[in-house]
Amino acid sequence: MQYTFSNRISSLKPSAIREILKATSQPGVIPFAAGNPAPESLPIDAIRHFLGEILEEHPIEALQYGISEGYTPLRNVLLKRMNESFSSVHDFDDLIIVSGAQQAVELTCKVFLNEGDTVICENPSFIGSLNAIRSYNVNLCGIELEYDGIDIAKLERALLEETNIKAIYLIPNFQNPTGITMSLKKRKAVYELAKKYSIIIIEDNPYGDLRFSGEELPTIKSMDTEGLVVYCGSFSKILSAGIRVGYALAPAQIIQKLVVAKQVSDVHTNLISQMLAERFLTQSDFESHIVKIKEIYRHKSSLMMNGIEQHFDKRIAFTRPEGGLFLWCTLPQDVDMLDYVKRAAAKGVAVVPGVAFLTNPLVGCNSFRLNYSTPTDEQIINGIEILGGIPLNN
Amino acid sequence: MQYTFSNRISSLKPSAIREILKATSQPGVIPFAAGNPAPESLPIDAIRHFLGEILEEHPIEALQYGISEGYTPLRNVLLKRMNESFSSVHDFDDLIIVSGAQQAVELTCKVFLNEGDTVICENPSFIGSLNAIRSYNVNLCGIELEYDGIDIAKLERALLEETNIKAIYLIPNFQNPTGITMSLKKRKAVYELAKKYSIIIIEDNPYGDLRFSGEELPTIKSMDTEGLVVYCGSFSKILSAGIRVGYALAPAQIIQKLVVAKQVSDVHTNLISQMLAERFLTQSDFESHIVKIKEIYRHKSSLMMNGIEQHFDKRIAFTRPEGGLFLWCTLPQDVDMLDYVKRAAAKGVAVVPGVAFLTNPLVGCNSFRLNYSTPTDEQIINGIEILGGIPLNN
Repeated sequence: MQYTFSNRISSLKPSAIREILKATSQPGVIPFAAGNPAPESLPIDAIRHFLGEILEEHPIEALQYGISEGYTPLRNVLLKRMNESFSSVHDFDDLIIVSGAQQAVELTCKVFLNEGDTVICENPSFIGSLNAIRSYNVNLCGIELEYDGIDIAKLERALLEETNIKAIYLIPNFQNPTGITMSLKKRKAVYELAKKYSIIIIEDNPYGDLRFSGEELPTIKSMDTEGLVVYCGSFSKILSAGIRVGYALAPAQIIQKLVVAKQVSDVHTNLISQMLAERFLTQSDFESHIVKIKEIYRHKSSLMMNGIEQHFDKRIAFTRPEGGLFLWCTLPQDVDMLDYVKRAAAKGVAVVPGVAFLTNPLVGCNSFRLNYSTPTDEQIINGIEILGGIPLNN
Repeated sequence: MQYTFSNRISSLKPSAIREILKATSQPGVIPFAAGNPAPESLPIDAIRHFLGEILEEHPIEALQYGISEGYTPLRNVLLKRMNESFSSVHDFDDLIIVSGAQQAVELTCKVFLNEGDTVICENPSFIGSLNAIRSYNVNLCGIELEYDGIDIAKLERALLEETNIKAIYLIPNFQNPTGITMSLKKRKAVYELAKKYSIIIIEDNPYGDLRFSGEELPTIKSMDTEGLVVYCGSFSKILSAGIRVGYALAPAQIIQKLVVAKQVSDVHTNLISQMLAERFLTQSDFESHIVKIKEIYRHKSSLMMNGIEQHFDKRIAFTRPEGGLFLWCTLPQDVDMLDYVKRAAAKGVAVVPGVAFLTNPLVGCNSFRLNYSTPTDEQIINGIEILGGIPLNN
C-alpha cells in the first residue's frame, strides 16, 4: 500500500549528513562525531548497589504503574536542588519528571505550538531539539551566535519582524554544537526581551553541571519573575544516558499541561530509574561524583585543545568550551567543509559537519563539531594529529 | 503571564470523571476503578536476578545511549516470538521498541495524522489511546460494540460517510473497558474493509497473552497481506508496567517513520529495561510465568463474576471476559449511572463510570467498568457484595 504520512513527519527526512555519519560509525573510526558521555564517568558500582536496594526494599512500587508527574521523592529533591542553585525555583513553579531532556523539549512543543507558529533558536543548535520543534510544523528562526552567546540585536529584530512567535529555545551553558556559554549580561538581556514580547523561553541545560573552567552563571530560570521559563534538566550526563531520566521546571500552569501531554505520550517515566536517580542524589556522595566527571572533561578538553593548537592550521578557528562535551572548529572561507569532513572520514576520523545543526541546512556552513567525551585519550591525541595533517584544500 | 497553549492540548481538559476517580483513590477504598496488574503477578526475583546480571556483564551498554530502533537482541526475539504466534510477521515488516504500547499508539498518530483527519475506534475504548488520538486535533468516530466486537455494518457505514479517514484503532482481545473479544469472523471482516478503503489498522494488544478461557484467536496482523496493520504490544501486563517497555510491529516503511518520531520524542527507551525484557523472554521460564499469571486472573475474574451472579440485581448486564483485566456492567435504562457510581464511592467501592471511555462523553452511558486484577480476593468478595447492596434507584 501507498502510505500517506503526516505533513510533520514527512518534513523530517533522513539527511545526507546522517549518511556521512553512518559511514563514520564503523569500528576503528575515531569517534569525534559522537555525543556519548565518557564511559569512565558512569558510576556503575553505585547504580548496581542502588538498583539492588530498590528491588529489595520497594519492588512493587518500582515495578507497578506510577503517576505521570513522576516519582514524588525525586521531584522534591530536584526542586530543593534547583532552589539551592541560584534560587531557580519560584513560588509559582512546579516540576515534572520526563524521559530525558529531549522529551521535556518535545512535550513543551506539544503543549504550546500550533501549526504556523514561530520558534526562535540559536543557529546552529542541537539537532534533536530542532527536529522536535520541526515535527510540529512550525517556522524555525535561527539567530547567529557570538563568542558570548546569541546575537541580542538580531534576536530583537526577529522578535519585531517574525509573526506568531511562541518560544525561544536556548542552550545557555556549553551549547551543543558550539561549546559557547551565554554571558550573564546576555542572559539578562534575553529574559528582558522575552518579557517585553511575552514569549516563552525553553532553557535547555543538559550540560549545566559539567563546568570545568570559568565561573558558574545563574540560569535564566533564576531570573524568571514573570513565569516565562521552561527549564529542562537531565541525568544523562551526570548519572546515565541509557536510563532516560530528565525533568522540566516551569510554572505550575504549564506543568499541568505537560502532565497531560506526558500521560498521552508514555504514561510515565521508567520508575526504577526515577528511584535510582533519587537515591543517587540523596544517598551517594553526589558532589564528589560531579567533581570527578568535571575532572575527566577538563582533562579531555585540554588534551583536544592543546592538540589543535599544536597540529591545526592557524587559519582554523575553534571555540574554547568551559564545560560540556563539544567544541566547534571553523575552516577558512575558501575551504570546502563537506569535502574536508569526507577526507577526514577516509583517514578514520569522524566529525560532524556543521550544516547538521543549522535551522536551514541549505545555507551552508564552514564549521564542524568535535566531541571529546567519547574518545579515549589516545584517540584524542591521534585523531587531532590526523585531522591536522589533512590539507585544507584538496 | 497569560499562557496561550496549543489547540490540541487545550482540548484535553481534566474531566469531571477524573474528579470522581480522585475522590475514590483514598486509602481503604476498594480499587475496582484501577487498571494495575496484580502485584502477585510481578516476577520480582527474576527481575532482581537479571538486573544484577546485566549490570555485572554489560554495564556500559546498559547505561549509555542506545539506538532509537531499540535494543537489537530484544527486537530479534520479539520478531521471532510474533512470527511463532499465528505467523504475524510478514516479509515487509519490522519492529521498534517503545516506552509502552501507549507510546506505540501516540507515535503512530504522530506519523500518520494531520489536523482534521478522522480516526475510527470502538466505542467505548481505552481513554489513554482516545486522548493520544485527540491530541492530534482529529475527529474521533466511535463505532458501537456487539458481544463479539465492533459492529461491522456500522463500521462500513462510517467508512463510506466519514471524510479523511486515516486509521481504525482496535483492541481485539479483552477490550478495555468492556472485556469483549472480537470474533475471528469480525477480525477478517475488519481487515477486508481496511483493505477495501485503504485504511491503516492500529491493533492494540496489551492483554493478548492473558487469555484464561476460550480459544486463542489469530491477530489481525497475521492477516496483513497488504501491509495495513500497526500492531502494538507491551510488557506491562506480563513483566512490569513500571519499566515502560512496549513495541510496534509494522511494515518497515512505517517503522522507519516511527523511528524518526521516537528519536525526537525521547531518543530511545530505557535500555536496562529493554535488556531485562530480552533476558526475561530468553532465559527465564517465560511460558510458565504466563501460565501463572493467567491462573491468577482466571481465579480473580471468576471470583468477581460469581459474586456478581450472587449479589447483583438481575437487571444489571455484565460481560464475561475470556482474558485481560476488566469487565463491563450495564445498568437498566432508568438508573442514573453517575449517581449509582457516586453512591458506590460513598460506600467505599471505586468503579469507573462508562462515560470516561466514550468518544463523545456528552452522549451519556449507563455502564461502568470493573477491574479484578488490582484488588485482593477479599476486596473482590466484599466489594461486589457492597455494590450488590446499593439500590439501583436512589
